[in-house]
Amino acid sequence: MPSAVANPRPSAVVPQTGEAARRAIRSGEWTGPTSGLAPGYVQGNLAILPAALASDFMRFCQLNPKPCPLLAAGAPGDPRLPSLAADLDIRTDLCRYKVFRNGELIDEPTDLGKHWRDDLVIFALGCSFSFEDALMQDGIELRHITCGSTVPMYRTNVPTTAAGPFHGPLVVSMRPLKPADAIRAIQITTRFPAVHGAPVHIGKPELIGIKDIMKPDYGDPAPMKDDEIPVFWACGVTPQSVVATVKPEFCITHYPGCMLVTDRKNSEFAIM
Amino acid sequence: MPSAVANPRPSAVVPQTGEAARRAIRSGEWTGPTSGLAPGYVQGNLAILPAALASDFMRFCQLNPKPCPLLAAGAPGDPRLPSLAADLDIRTDLCRYKVFRNGELIDEPTDLGKHWRDDLVIFALGCSFSFEDALMQDGIELRHITCGSTVPMYRTNVPTTAAGPFHGPLVVSMRPLKPADAIRAIQITTRFPAVHGAPVHIGKPELIGIKDIMKPDYGDPAPMKDDEIPVFWACGVTPQSVVATVKPEFCITHYPGCMLVTDRKNSEFAIM
Repeated sequence: MPSAVANPRPSAVVPQTGEAARRAIRSGEWTGPTSGLAPGYVQGNLAILPAALASDFMRFCQLNPKPCPLLAAGAPGDPRLPSLAADLDIRTDLCRYKVFRNGELIDEPTDLGKHWRDDLVIFALGCSFSFEDALMQDGIELRHITCGSTVPMYRTNVPTTAAGPFHGPLVVSMRPLKPADAIRAIQITTRFPAVHGAPVHIGKPELIGIKDIMKPDYGDPAPMKDDEIPVFWACGVTPQSVVATVKPEFCITHYPGCMLVTDRKNSEFAIM
Repeated sequence: MPSAVANPRPSAVVPQTGEAARRAIRSGEWTGPTSGLAPGYVQGNLAILPAALASDFMRFCQLNPKPCPLLAAGAPGDPRLPSLAADLDIRTDLCRYKVFRNGELIDEPTDLGKHWRDDLVIFALGCSFSFEDALMQDGIELRHITCGSTVPMYRTNVPTTAAGPFHGPLVVSMRPLKPADAIRAIQITTRFPAVHGAPVHIGKPELIGIKDIMKPDYGDPAPMKDDEIPVFWACGVTPQSVVATVKPEFCITHYPGCMLVTDRKNSEFAIM
């Protein structure tokens, strides 16, 4: 969910690798957001759930890979995700978290020291930063980035596939593109199934239950020109919105814009 | 150009390989059209020009690979294209031809015996049959096939890149598709750059100079439903229309619907 917390030290040197980014975050030198940090390295959405819910949530991700591309899952009580970074400790390596009890926000801490439990399971999910990086490298203009705003996101009338208590509508992000760029963007993002992959919809917002494209449910409206069409990708807000509906006894997510920064490169996730 | 000549022997056994198809055509057993013949084998558009124009035309194809995907070119005076089929003789292996002198149609023969010249150069260009085969294998409905009509084609306001005397507008074919099928169709046809490849445009016909989608310049209108968007591919009629503009001293093309059937499989032309 690419929202933002103002970084109080904008003059700080921007860390250029995943490891340097985590070190700066862990030490409190970098307080967020993570957009623009460690260019080329994969950033992820975070969800942490009690083990009792973990297998249903993992099944939910497997059934809905486009909104919930699972990069890694932890063992119960284990704060590490060595497949994403050898030194990663989920309790200290994000700038800020949101902690929920029975669906209610109870804390927005900068570390999880006092909230960590022996039964918690970490889920790291792919995020649109990775494919946006590939689109921009190809010279495609992304309106929300040009405008310095958050990408517009919409709750659709498309249901996800339920698993245990987890169910709810697909949330999509929208980027207005010229038709030729839309075709190129489909080609490029198809190469990145681990970070949402190809769009789920193109043109005709009303077909997926979007009444007014200028009134997103999350994020900011994106100005659309006459020679552009709306292109919709499955969005990592989907699992957050689904988890919120379930009101789990306990749950932790990243704070919007403060993503998990890994040692994996975006290019590693290209399938060809 | 997938138009049609009625085959006078509809009860004839349909040849299942490229070689069997050419043999049936050569002997007069099969008189056209070639749609449905030799399923899975590449069929091509044909253009034959005097050697004096050949290098400009080849350069035109190289500059405009989406409308003019060159599968093979012959040596001057040589009626063979061994890279497409060992036994291929262009003078006898198509059901019917169109012969033009100074831009005027002078004959529609079933063989080229009396028209062949020592300076003629053959050009075989990829055709949409190949990618339509891949789309249908994926379960995507193609409206013009459902309707038993010719795909609608439009002269656009998009110029091709000129080479020597060859220049003119891009001609596109249009297939109405549901948004999810449109995305899938872009993915599938991207794999086939040798047979027109990915679409060149999607949605908003007016952006490429199409005033009325129900009034194609060639072929038949394709009924479009409310939940569909128009998807446009570069069309093999482009080089035919460009060659017609040049009014070459001499020129031969295939008769609409009577394509060159080769021994190459469509699947060989998938890049991944």
